[in-house]
Amino acid sequence: MKVKLGIVGFGGMGKWHEKNAIRVKDVEIIAICDINLDKIVGVEEKGYDIYESADDMFAKADINTVLLTVPNHLHKELTIKAANAGLNIIDEKPAALNVKEFDEMMAAVQENKVFFTVHQNRRWDRDFRIVKKLVQEKELGEVFTIESNLHTANGRIHEWHLYKKYGGGMMYDWGVHLIDQAMQMMEGAKLLSVFADIKSIINDEVDDYFNVALKFDNGITYHIELGTYFLKYQPRWLAAGDRGTVYINTFACDGGIARTSELLNKLPAQIAETVAGPTRQFAPQPAGVLYDDPLPEVETEWTDFYKNVVAAINGQEEQLIKNSEVREVLSIMEAAFESSETNQAVLFS
Amino acid sequence: MKVKLGIVGFGGMGKWHEKNAIRVKDVEIIAICDINLDKIVGVEEKGYDIYESADDMFAKADINTVLLTVPNHLHKELTIKAANAGLNIIDEKPAALNVKEFDEMMAAVQENKVFFTVHQNRRWDRDFRIVKKLVQEKELGEVFTIESNLHTANGRIHEWHLYKKYGGGMMYDWGVHLIDQAMQMMEGAKLLSVFADIKSIINDEVDDYFNVALKFDNGITYHIELGTYFLKYQPRWLAAGDRGTVYINTFACDGGIARTSELLNKLPAQIAETVAGPTRQFAPQPAGVLYDDPLPEVETEWTDFYKNVVAAINGQEEQLIKNSEVREVLSIMEAAFESSETNQAVLFS
Repeated sequence: MKVKLGIVGFGGMGKWHEKNAIRVKDVEIIAICDINLDKIVGVEEKGYDIYESADDMFAKADINTVLLTVPNHLHKELTIKAANAGLNIIDEKPAALNVKEFDEMMAAVQENKVFFTVHQNRRWDRDFRIVKKLVQEKELGEVFTIESNLHTANGRIHEWHLYKKYGGGMMYDWGVHLIDQAMQMMEGAKLLSVFADIKSIINDEVDDYFNVALKFDNGITYHIELGTYFLKYQPRWLAAGDRGTVYINTFACDGGIARTSELLNKLPAQIAETVAGPTRQFAPQPAGVLYDDPLPEVETEWTDFYKNVVAAINGQEEQLIKNSEVREVLSIMEAAFESSETNQAVLFS
Repeated sequence: MKVKLGIVGFGGMGKWHEKNAIRVKDVEIIAICDINLDKIVGVEEKGYDIYESADDMFAKADINTVLLTVPNHLHKELTIKAANAGLNIIDEKPAALNVKEFDEMMAAVQENKVFFTVHQNRRWDRDFRIVKKLVQEKELGEVFTIESNLHTANGRIHEWHLYKKYGGGMMYDWGVHLIDQAMQMMEGAKLLSVFADIKSIINDEVDDYFNVALKFDNGITYHIELGTYFLKYQPRWLAAGDRGTVYINTFACDGGIARTSELLNKLPAQIAETVAGPTRQFAPQPAGVLYDDPLPEVETEWTDFYKNVVAAINGQEEQLIKNSEVREVLSIMEAAFESSETNQAVLFS
């Protein structure tokens, strides 16, 4: 069965899906809907059915699946409507604003026996895949800390993301990806606790900075930091183990694996003099002791998301973005908001 | 009154004090003690009285003040003995292994009406002073996060610091400094909570990695991270506010203040394509938008520590390293150990 897709919401992400999903075999785009018809541009010659109302599209279009690329606060309502119309559903992230909403959506999905998944597409990011491979294959030895950072000087958040009532803010926009990546990378480990600091720095209503620490029972603490006004960008990734430290500076995957050929007890003790006193422990290393190994190659192809959607809808594969995983990420986001509010950690086990 | 000093413990720090304290007017070194006389080298021509036993030195030497540069587990016992001998006391950090020990020491100090301070000397570090000045003078606007990092590839901890029974480990060795700096920089703010992750990575008995988050009621969360086996060193300092981000790479104070001349809403929207999708928020900045201001100059002179000790003993100045501050730092270290153990935050107010 072909996935005959109707896209609801033709902003940036709707347009992006339209351009990219059609590259996938057995995905056919049939209809596009936006409450603002002026937004439906650039696709005039493709013969899509155009709708101004999602209700109309769900009722009339020759589709079996909808993609919801609408502001976050609309995911719940439109998902339930689509499910009740017997349509399969692909939601943009975050699936919902909280676990309660998500559970209501799942009830409708299960009642109508439709397929549902969420486009948590950052699982296909090359930088993420490299770190995941290194951590899971023990190339850094026993890892003790992972840092997943996203810093920019862009400052202002754009469009509806600026407003609370639309589900704006960076935790909903990117936090969901960064937490999803964490849970994928820590596969098999148990989450122990969540401690978070979430702030609005230059955007009044919504968060544009957060720092989240996830402690796992495998000995790894996974730190996530995002700032839209953090002017000295830190590496996108750092992961340190007892056999090396990987760093990846940007999405372009420039980085390496820092290793050392010697430890202090084999080296002549050095002392670094600072203004206020000496330090041996934090003196520089002799030349040539620290070196870099190159990052491994990884293959990653985002269209695997849609290929899996097609296969899962046809019962040939298990879906990759599992609804239990989506729910867990939402529960961690909720815990992060709670932790930031109470200054306490939220225990998971 | 001159400070007539007897040094107990002539390892690395004892030797360093001997070399540097004598540069200060009205500090005279009279006696040196070490249970291993072989350690008392390099000072033969200076005519110091040499002791193998602290008890002997406290009873017989012509001193009015002792400097205790002994392993951490001995601070309590020797401080109480020195106080009972009517001697003023300068302790190396950490003053004690916990608050309970410290309170017992303070009881002896108060009973004997002697002077007591602790050599929390990293308050004179130039890098720290620069960040403190920028934060306190609002040069970064309203600061929301501070990171104080110390990374090295030296790995192994040295000498008695390797052993628990001597009060070893990096939290006792450097954590005390880094927390003391935090409390000095956050002067006037109330500590809300402490969340910590403390680990032994390549040293079996004692901690050689920690990450501590201190939340304050001024809106700043202060992150401290130290690793003796963190092979890709991160900046010694990062502090981000709504008007700039300061970075200082090393003790040598190489760094700057990153600022931006524009924000996103004034710039043409860019989109960066990554493997798994587009991002506008985290697209690169147009050239020339980000720039660096230079770090400010600060004057700092470590000998101010001893000058203040002399003045405080003579009743001319309040002591700079206050015992209430020393106690607070110890209480935060205790909270950090507790937090790491329980995966919970420890609330302070």
